[in-house]
Amino acid sequence: MTEVEVFAPATVSNVGCGFDVLGFAIEGVGDRLSVTLRDQPGVEILSIEGAGGTIPRAPAHNTAGVAALTLLEGVGERNRGLSFRIHKGIAAGSGLGSSAASAVAAVLAADEILELELPSEQLLTFALEGERIASGGVLHADNVAPCLFGGFVAVRSLHPPDVVEIPVPRGLCCALVRPHIQIQTSESRALLGNAIPLSTAVHQWANVAGLVAGLFRDDWDLISRSLEDVVAEPVRGSQVPGFQEMKEAAIESGALGCSLSGSGPTVFALCRGPETAEAAADAMLEAVGKATGLAADRHTTTVGAGGARLLQVT
Amino acid sequence: MTEVEVFAPATVSNVGCGFDVLGFAIEGVGDRLSVTLRDQPGVEILSIEGAGGTIPRAPAHNTAGVAALTLLEGVGERNRGLSFRIHKGIAAGSGLGSSAASAVAAVLAADEILELELPSEQLLTFALEGERIASGGVLHADNVAPCLFGGFVAVRSLHPPDVVEIPVPRGLCCALVRPHIQIQTSESRALLGNAIPLSTAVHQWANVAGLVAGLFRDDWDLISRSLEDVVAEPVRGSQVPGFQEMKEAAIESGALGCSLSGSGPTVFALCRGPETAEAAADAMLEAVGKATGLAADRHTTTVGAGGARLLQVT
Repeated sequence: MTEVEVFAPATVSNVGCGFDVLGFAIEGVGDRLSVTLRDQPGVEILSIEGAGGTIPRAPAHNTAGVAALTLLEGVGERNRGLSFRIHKGIAAGSGLGSSAASAVAAVLAADEILELELPSEQLLTFALEGERIASGGVLHADNVAPCLFGGFVAVRSLHPPDVVEIPVPRGLCCALVRPHIQIQTSESRALLGNAIPLSTAVHQWANVAGLVAGLFRDDWDLISRSLEDVVAEPVRGSQVPGFQEMKEAAIESGALGCSLSGSGPTVFALCRGPETAEAAADAMLEAVGKATGLAADRHTTTVGAGGARLLQVT
Repeated sequence: MTEVEVFAPATVSNVGCGFDVLGFAIEGVGDRLSVTLRDQPGVEILSIEGAGGTIPRAPAHNTAGVAALTLLEGVGERNRGLSFRIHKGIAAGSGLGSSAASAVAAVLAADEILELELPSEQLLTFALEGERIASGGVLHADNVAPCLFGGFVAVRSLHPPDVVEIPVPRGLCCALVRPHIQIQTSESRALLGNAIPLSTAVHQWANVAGLVAGLFRDDWDLISRSLEDVVAEPVRGSQVPGFQEMKEAAIESGALGCSLSGSGPTVFALCRGPETAEAAADAMLEAVGKATGLAADRHTTTVGAGGARLLQVT
């Protein structure tokens, strides 16, 4: 084979109470990446389309580049060389796992073209190293894991990787609205500080228990009650202009719950059924426009779409 | 009716990672309580057997008394009077929900003899007020809720009460060993401090997600990996002489995991099947004797037995 092309989906992370732990893949949005072998050792990024020139092409400063370099190093293939072309379908700094998608796409494509057949846990670990440079050094896999595996997942542990698939009720959908501003994950993380009150932490893991139970037993009311995030949203919500207005609009439209995707600015609302998701997306879009005058776009999806996959091998 | 007798089971709370949230009822151990109407308003406690005279009979200082007084006040029946006799089957300060059981027994018996037919959420709220005086003022319902409802539960919220039943795999058993020392919940709670590192909190709720998922899908390995408590056990474990030795002995016997029940000193080990639970209990008992010379007793049970119930009405 001379060229491999892959797709890696956008993801919603920090799902409600599941900060750094719960994430899911969405459909219809993602990055495409193609890779060819090159004669020189190391990684080069020949082009990045769709990001308006904002993403560095230097491999050591690019999530796909770092992930691929870590893979080459990790499997003792540092004499091999890879050339990437990246087509960004996910806006950088949107809160939809843009950096994770490129990192996952890079390791999946590298694994394929080098015919390594690495176990998925190892791909996850290499992709995480790419993600690390986007998140201020704090490792979290709630974008990378659902991007790689698809579905709705809980990341129980990073060392060693332990990713738990959580089933979702049939008809669980998601409305997404992205105001056109950028938020840097690393800066947003610094806002959270290093410690939280024990009582707040208990509140959060009580909701995590409720949310996982609600998803397993198709209990829509329990899902709705449990989505509440008392850790990140109270701090980060104010960073996103119009967030409260979007949240109120989503809930009024019948959404089960509404919070920030990743560190924002994209706001997600989980909904029962596609019609409610459409209505919530419309209402949120209108609300953010009215409250802030910002341009924004909207998307709806089922929750827990497929993960990263090969598109073609030539 | 002139007399009502009820039983309320012992409970394991703080199940592994589920500090203040996850608890389950055990079989074969609990408090019995009988109630009669009295002519004067208010509550009196005529006798407390089985506790060696260590539990105050003054209603305002007794968990059953406070729970019953709160109930009378809460339902506008403060002119009614109740006389209790309590037979403690659970040692006070053992970490097995002794105070919660007496409080639950009191509200269940009061509800019956006064023919109130209160909703269970209300009984829970009144029982919690009794529990409050035993826990240093911090409300937590992971003893009261499984004691009242039975089973394995997650307490998602206290205000309003939201108790989520979690199914457990068939054959999930528990070994319990209680070294003969007492630990006051209120003092043990103070040791934990008021704040925890955010990274520790994330670690804990990642395990909560894993544990709940493991219980739902009968995934014994996932249950085992997820039981780990990184919040309370590291602080409280050293309060219980021989804890590490008991834990090692339990794991060597094949237990899925081992931690403190409540704030200890009782140590619980979850096991697959009754034979493993028997072996773990034996090994833990031997280990604590060898390490500390303390007297101790052991018990084995299925996980998630029945909740509080009427024994007889005469």
